[in-house]
Parts: sequence; structure tokens; C-alpha cells
Amino acid sequence: MAVKLGILGLGTVGTGTVELLQDKLGRHPLLQEIEIYRVGVRSLTKHRDVELSPEVITTDLEAIVNDPAVDIVVELMGGLEPARTLMLTAIKNGKHVVTANKAAISRFGAEIFTAANEAGVYVMLEAAVGGGIPVIQPLKQSLSVNRIDTIIGIVNGTTNYILTRMQTEGSDFDDVLADAQKLGYAEADPTADVDGLDAGDKISILASLGFDGRINRDDVYCEGIRQVTKTDIAYSAKLGFVIKLLGIAQHLDIDNSQLSVRVHPTLVTTNHPLASINGVYNAILVEGQPIGQVMLFGPGAGAGATASAVASDILNVVAALKTTTPKPNPLLACSHQHYCQIAPISELVTRFYARFLSKDQAGVIGKLGTCFGNYGVSLESVVQTGFQGELAEIVVVTHDVREGDFRQALAEIQGMESIDSIPSILRVL
Amino acid sequence: MAVKLGILGLGTVGTGTVELLQDKLGRHPLLQEIEIYRVGVRSLTKHRDVELSPEVITTDLEAIVNDPAVDIVVELMGGLEPARTLMLTAIKNGKHVVTANKAAISRFGAEIFTAANEAGVYVMLEAAVGGGIPVIQPLKQSLSVNRIDTIIGIVNGTTNYILTRMQTEGSDFDDVLADAQKLGYAEADPTADVDGLDAGDKISILASLGFDGRINRDDVYCEGIRQVTKTDIAYSAKLGFVIKLLGIAQHLDIDNSQLSVRVHPTLVTTNHPLASINGVYNAILVEGQPIGQVMLFGPGAGAGATASAVASDILNVVAALKTTTPKPNPLLACSHQHYCQIAPISELVTRFYARFLSKDQAGVIGKLGTCFGNYGVSLESVVQTGFQGELAEIVVVTHDVREGDFRQALAEIQGMESIDSIPSILRVL
Repeated sequence: MAVKLGILGLGTVGTGTVELLQDKLGRHPLLQEIEIYRVGVRSLTKHRDVELSPEVITTDLEAIVNDPAVDIVVELMGGLEPARTLMLTAIKNGKHVVTANKAAISRFGAEIFTAANEAGVYVMLEAAVGGGIPVIQPLKQSLSVNRIDTIIGIVNGTTNYILTRMQTEGSDFDDVLADAQKLGYAEADPTADVDGLDAGDKISILASLGFDGRINRDDVYCEGIRQVTKTDIAYSAKLGFVIKLLGIAQHLDIDNSQLSVRVHPTLVTTNHPLASINGVYNAILVEGQPIGQVMLFGPGAGAGATASAVASDILNVVAALKTTTPKPNPLLACSHQHYCQIAPISELVTRFYARFLSKDQAGVIGKLGTCFGNYGVSLESVVQTGFQGELAEIVVVTHDVREGDFRQALAEIQGMESIDSIPSILRVL
Repeated sequence: MAVKLGILGLGTVGTGTVELLQDKLGRHPLLQEIEIYRVGVRSLTKHRDVELSPEVITTDLEAIVNDPAVDIVVELMGGLEPARTLMLTAIKNGKHVVTANKAAISRFGAEIFTAANEAGVYVMLEAAVGGGIPVIQPLKQSLSVNRIDTIIGIVNGTTNYILTRMQTEGSDFDDVLADAQKLGYAEADPTADVDGLDAGDKISILASLGFDGRINRDDVYCEGIRQVTKTDIAYSAKLGFVIKLLGIAQHLDIDNSQLSVRVHPTLVTTNHPLASINGVYNAILVEGQPIGQVMLFGPGAGAGATASAVASDILNVVAALKTTTPKPNPLLACSHQHYCQIAPISELVTRFYARFLSKDQAGVIGKLGTCFGNYGVSLESVVQTGFQGELAEIVVVTHDVREGDFRQALAEIQGMESIDSIPSILRVL
């Protein structure tokens, strides 16, 4: 029997999630067992980018969380209320909850998880931090065998976008913010982002998972990026730093009795893994014993990325619901029955780099170009880079080409009177 | 009742795993329920870095996989045989298997997983690819709701170490290889690494998970780095590329009927996320719909990192064994009962960057230094960077300092006659 979802909210993330769940080809087969049973919206008349039959859509959110047929409530409304109350009602009614709501979880997590544990249901929140980046499940599973020392994250895309542009353009904060608002990368009221509050919600959640205890959101120090100037960015660069808004959670002292959990703009040496995380991308760096340093990087926001995280949580719950008997959990087992077809390397389509040594400088570039052209190989650049003794050295980079065609052209070029040798052939990403 | 492990092999990874499991403080509480019941070794007389009671250690590996008391066989021997036969026997006997053996899984995966599915047991392999990086579970779970387009990995630390040194030092392959062998970064027989075979095993496994089908290891094209010269690295750099040994798995054509799975040295533009993965680090880049681009980065080898992956697989199986009743899976639920203590920001110990505007150029650096010294603030660098009108501008970077002490020093400096203002205070990672 299909697992029935009651989705609360059909904004950007809700629409992305419905789109993903309606288009199951090539995704995990367990998604077949999911039914979009109810979707709660604010207005029935608003235009939607997804098709849903009229009996699925309702404005009565209370009815969804109280409907005995609903197995999983997917809360994608955001905000503190009514999201909190609806989640608590769903939990009390024995429903599992999947949520993207970092604000509600970071503030009411204690209440929500206590209720969930009493009711014996899951509350899943992969989408609450880092958009599509798998970080919540890795912290609960793969990384949880480590003693975590530090979690450092670029967890707010808006501020990272602003800082990246200030860095590359040498612009002022106010100008970049205004432009970011115009382009839709920042909200009309940017407070939650630029003052570090959103990052504060997220580092609270990560700290709670990494350090295995609740975090009082009010204890988290949050300093935003309004006071970061282009002057500081320029000087930092001269000193070998970039400025990033980081959420940081770490043990403060040797006996591990206290944590430091905080958000502030931070100079990061340019060779640090987080220094090159630019634009709206997010990254979370985890340091622990014995694993050392691990970094998870990806799109921190956006309909598709966040829908991926929401859908993966739904999948995890569905897998758990399907495995209350001692059968292998389908997310852990491998059940492949068929072999994938693997193409021979000659069928590969890629760019190439090749280096030629030529006896004849004058006409050789023309001859190369003509020969490549005959095999459909188009050149992105041709550089005569220098000499090796009597021989002229030529480097070419191609556009995408079928490897078999490129090799045929090379074989012909190899036979040319004017070509001494082809010392290097490499593929280009 | 404790879950009983039979560990096969007590080399680097085996020792790291035993160390982790013997030292449970601060790790996932479920590790308490694990007992190291038997450890199979080649020689009983060899010195060991871990303490195990004599009745735990045995040279009879057959006896371990046939012992009815063993719940999970942890295969850390490596190599094709007897690892394959021992795993198959364990599976036939209804035992779960955790393995780090990429060679055996990439070649005998079909046989091993078919047997496991028939027996209803798990075969877990997080440690087989990317050392400690969580990549196998994310591919099975979080990322599996996506339609995967491409998986690109730097999955062999030895070759990445060699290429990185060739790049930074302008050295030849043979010289760097010889040095890497001396330093223990390359094996005496480096074939599996430098000829791309190890990377081939790993990209086969990743392709199988990402594209949801078996991969015939013999179909995977493997080209190593022996032919990469310092000349090519230099020219590539001029063209804006670095050379990386990549394992690549992707759909070859639009109708997705064929995959390309291959390993070869590849030019990567310097601004590509994989271009800055240097030394023995590994990284796996996954592109899918709708998630976009996600990268997982970390230590690709080493006792601690690999032990982390092995232990996380053991944990996953133990969690599954403990949840054959409809109670929440402890890896998915949150059961925190206590609040973490969060230190106030003044207790933070960090480096700082501060910028001062001063009316008095002559003695001000001395005054700053003295004042900081009085509060125990030691300076890493002091730079007089220029002028703003009549005012001299001074930037300092401190060593680690308690924030409270630093703020007290700043308050005193703020009051100095010669100081106009302190426009910027930032923390340094």
C-alpha cells in the first residue's frame, strides 16, 4: 500500500518536491510507493506550476494533520507558527514529519523531538541546513562514530553571494545588497540573512547533531556582514585572506565541558577549503577523531536542491516503514539484477589536450587544422608554445569530440611528413 | 545483548577500527552494544598496537565466518582471495558483512550481493571508496532521489599526491614516485595506484550505486599517470588547467542507454571544484537532477579515516538489527535529553584582525603593542597599510587570544589620545 503524504505549503520548495515526486523515472524505486495524498495551500485560485487534482489541494491544513489516512506530514511552509503547532498535532496523531524549517527546529526542537520520541515517530530535517547537501544524515550516521571537534559552515547563500561579489568586484556592501535584491538573491527584508540569524539557526542544528545535545538558540552569538567593508576585504586579500560568514561550533576547552556556537564574518586563509566556496554555494567542514577533516559542498538553496533533501527524508521514512520486519532495509542493501551497459572509450565524447612536435613550422598548423576538420574535430585553441631543439612544439585543445574520431585524426597526423611525434594526449573536463 | 563482531585482518585499518571501538567516549551511544568477539590474524606472535585478550585473537579465519555466535563479519584483509570465499561463507551462514575491499567488491559484487540478498543480510562498503568521506550511504540515501548525470572522483590519494607535487615543484614523475615510496605514500609496487586500477575499482562501485546497476569491472577503461610529464603540467598551467587523475562515470548519450565509466589523467580548469583537491585528499563530485552539483571531500585513506567508515557501517547494521520492531531507528530519531552548555562569546579563543585609524603615526604601534601585551594579546603581524586623509591606518592580526581579553585591550586602546577609531574587528580562522 502506498505511503500517503500530506504536504503543507506549495511555494518554491513545495512545488519542487511535488515535481520530483511526480517524475519518478531514474530515481530510487521506492519512490513508486509514495502517494501525494493532500497538499495544503493558502489560496486555491493561485496559479501553480504543477498539476494536482482538485481533491488533493485544500486550504484546511488542520484537516491534513488530523487526517488518519496521512502517514507523513511534509512541512514546507516555513515560519514559526502555525508550522510548530501543525507539526506537534501531526506528531500527536502518530504521523512522521519531514520539515525544511530551520527556524522552527532550532527554536522548538526540544519540544518537537520530545513529542516525536513519545509518539514513536520520525522528524526528519535534511532540508533545513545546506539545501541539497547531504549533511544531516551523514552527521547522524557516518560521522557519528567520530568524536567531533569542530563544525564550520558557510550555511547562508545570500551572504556568501554578497561577500563573493564584494571580493571580486571591490564593491560596497550596500550596492551589492541592492543588486542582490534586484536579482532575487536577497529578500526585500534581508535581516535574517545579512545579520546572521539564518546561519545561527543552521549552526544550532548542526551543533546539536554533531555534539549530541540540545542547543538553546538564544545562546548562539550572531554577527552579520553589514559592517564588512570593501576596504577590509582588500586588506584581507593582501594578507592572504578572504572574508566569509561562518557558522562555527566547537569544543571550547580541553575537558569538553563547554561548546562555542556562533556566527560571524571571519578571515579565512586563501588555501583553506572554505575559502574557495563562492557565490550561493554552501559548504560544511567537519573535523573529528579519528576521521580528520571532511567537507560537504553543494547548492545551499533553490527549489531543486531543497526538494532533493526533502525527498530523501521522505524516502528514509518510507524505507523505515517498509522494514518493520527483519527484511533488509532497501536503503542499505544492494539489489541490482542487471548489468549496466558500459560504452567503449572510443564512444566517449570529451575535450582533448594534445601536444605535437613538428619539423616544419610554417604550414603545420594549417595541416593539423585541415586533418582534424576532416574527422569532425573542432579546435578550441592552438598554441605554438616554443621549441625543443629543432622541433616546434604545438599544443591544441579541442571542443567536445568523439574519442574514436579524434584518435583516427591523430593516426593520420602521426603519419604526416612534418610531424615528429605526439608526446601528450590528455582529456579535458 | 551485544552484537558480536568477527574482524578479519588486523593491519592498519583493522587496528584503527579496533582502537575506535575500544574508545567509545563521545561517540554514538549505540557503539556500546558492540563486542569485539573474534579477530582473525595471520600471525599470533606479531606485535600489536591494540590490546586484545588472547581468546579473541585467532589465526583460524574459517572458524570466525562459521562461528554461530558472530553477527557481523568485518573483512579488512584486502585482496581477492581468501577474502571473497570468507565473505561468501559468512553470508551463507546468515552473517552481515562490512568490508573495505574495493578490489573484491568491484569484481565479485554481483556474486556477493546476490548471495546477501538471498540470505537477507547486509553487505556494507563505505570504507571501500574515499576513505572516511561519507559517499556510499549518501549515494544510497540522500542522493538516490535524484537522476544522476555524472560522478567524477579523485579517488586515489597516491596519484593525487604525486600529481600535486609534480605541479607545485615542477618535478618529474619518476622522481616524485621514488620519493613518495620513501615517504610511505606509494607502495613498493605502485602499479595498482599509478596505473589507475585502484581508481577503476572505486569508480566502478560509485557508478553501480549512482546509476543503479551492476558494472562489469573489465569494461572500465583505466589509464594511469605514468605518461604525465612536468612539461604537460607546466603547459596546462599556462592554459589555466591542472592535471588530475579522475574516475568518471556518466551517461554517454541522450537516451541514457549507455554509461561511460573510465579512469584517466584529465586537465581540469583551475576554478573547477576538483582542481583544488590536493595531496592525499579525495573528493567525489556528483551531478544530478534536480540537486545540481554536490561535492564530498576528505581524507581518502589512513587508519583513522578508514576506521571511521568501517565503524559507521557497523553502526548502521547494529541500528538495523536493533529496529526489527516498529520502534524508531536510533540513527534517524533524535533523542537528546540534555542541553549543551554554550560558552559566551567572550570565552572564545580565536585569532583577530583589527584595523585602527590613528592621529599619531610615530609612536602608535608601540603603544598598541604595549597595551595588547598587558592583556596577554600577542600579535602575529602589524602592518601600517596607508593613510586616510590625516589618519594613519594600521592593521593587526593576533595570535589566538581569549575574546574577552582582546575586547578589554580594545576598550583601553579606544580611549587612547592617539587613536581616532577602530573601524574593523574580525575573527580569523
